[in-house]
Amino acid sequence: MGELERATVSVDVVCFALADDHLSVLLVQRAETPFAGAWALPGGTVHADETLDAAASRCLAERTGVDGAYLEQLYTFGDPGRDPRGRTLSVAYVALLPAGDPRPAHRGRGVREVGWFPVDALPALAFDHDRISAYARWRLAQKLTYTPLAFHVLPATFTLGDVRALHEAVDGRRYDPSNFQKQMLARWDLAPVSGVKDRRTRRPARLYRYIGPREIAGPPPNPEETP
Amino acid sequence: MGELERATVSVDVVCFALADDHLSVLLVQRAETPFAGAWALPGGTVHADETLDAAASRCLAERTGVDGAYLEQLYTFGDPGRDPRGRTLSVAYVALLPAGDPRPAHRGRGVREVGWFPVDALPALAFDHDRISAYARWRLAQKLTYTPLAFHVLPATFTLGDVRALHEAVDGRRYDPSNFQKQMLARWDLAPVSGVKDRRTRRPARLYRYIGPREIAGPPPNPEETP
Repeated sequence: MGELERATVSVDVVCFALADDHLSVLLVQRAETPFAGAWALPGGTVHADETLDAAASRCLAERTGVDGAYLEQLYTFGDPGRDPRGRTLSVAYVALLPAGDPRPAHRGRGVREVGWFPVDALPALAFDHDRISAYARWRLAQKLTYTPLAFHVLPATFTLGDVRALHEAVDGRRYDPSNFQKQMLARWDLAPVSGVKDRRTRRPARLYRYIGPREIAGPPPNPEETP
Repeated sequence: MGELERATVSVDVVCFALADDHLSVLLVQRAETPFAGAWALPGGTVHADETLDAAASRCLAERTGVDGAYLEQLYTFGDPGRDPRGRTLSVAYVALLPAGDPRPAHRGRGVREVGWFPVDALPALAFDHDRISAYARWRLAQKLTYTPLAFHVLPATFTLGDVRALHEAVDGRRYDPSNFQKQMLARWDLAPVSGVKDRRTRRPARLYRYIGPREIAGPPPNPEETP
């Protein structure tokens, strides 16, 4: 027992990208101990004069070259024993790069290799990063269900097949097209747009645009900005 | 610049309760420096062998006597300078006590006074606890909008007036009864129950029960439990 005098504070980023209806996660192969050679989430230690948000952006950019992504604080992991070097908090962040925008990542400081992995085929990760990435995906799926996140990720006009492909990529399961379509039309404010070709089938398709509220539940990028 | 070697880790709890359609927050008056005599959120320092969740439950109980509340991690506040004693992270938690259950709080360790304050009339708080409590309220309002939280808080059968009173207490504003009613019936799976008296007006009232999914978006109490 006894009070914890001081802990190390790190940030780790679960950076997702959507490409061709598949969800990928950006990982780095560690060059240093502990877990040298293992894949891990990009992250690092917070600087003395730095906010947590700034540290997350900096570490993602330094390790992988991915710069300017929209990061949101996810959760803080702080179980005793999660880092063999001593009590270490990981303030985890999540990023979702827009469709068609998985920027080429480069190998940064302390990193042997960097790569995008399909979310359903991640290697075993260092520390408790398996748990952090699984939790990030669960939260992403929750936000897709409960908030208009899909309509931030999709292009301005889309088919219900596009919406379904997005849900299927994030949730890792298939949905019955006609039930899914009914649910989406009941749940969201979708306005039909005069038909163009479906970008998958090349046949005339029913296009929609989203006309409902766009506010997303969850932490704003910077809590200073909330009233 | 330079890496932050070690930081102090504290937990702070924003404990809400609903009573008579008003939302209250549980505060403690600090007995010790810094901010001696100022009101603050109940909290404290994490023990060496303790999870963050356990620390939040323990600190809330030790400071106020409120034991066994359902706590959920909210956000981690870690700006440099938020604590005059040195770099300190606050892992903030939020609790919502069920309606009719604002348990009598007692004065705990390091605490001069303890009290429930109306959310719209909080005193100035120590550290950045104004910001933490404002953010907690914003998140509570978001969850009420986006998730079936209301149907965890309300009794099993309720009128649409009860639902509106809950939203008004959390959001701090009034809603037009007939528009609000239409929105709720469109948004949630509500089944009418054969009429009893309205507990407010004592006239026959339309009672409903909620028959939709109950899962709530947001951090589960323990991230270990997620897949």
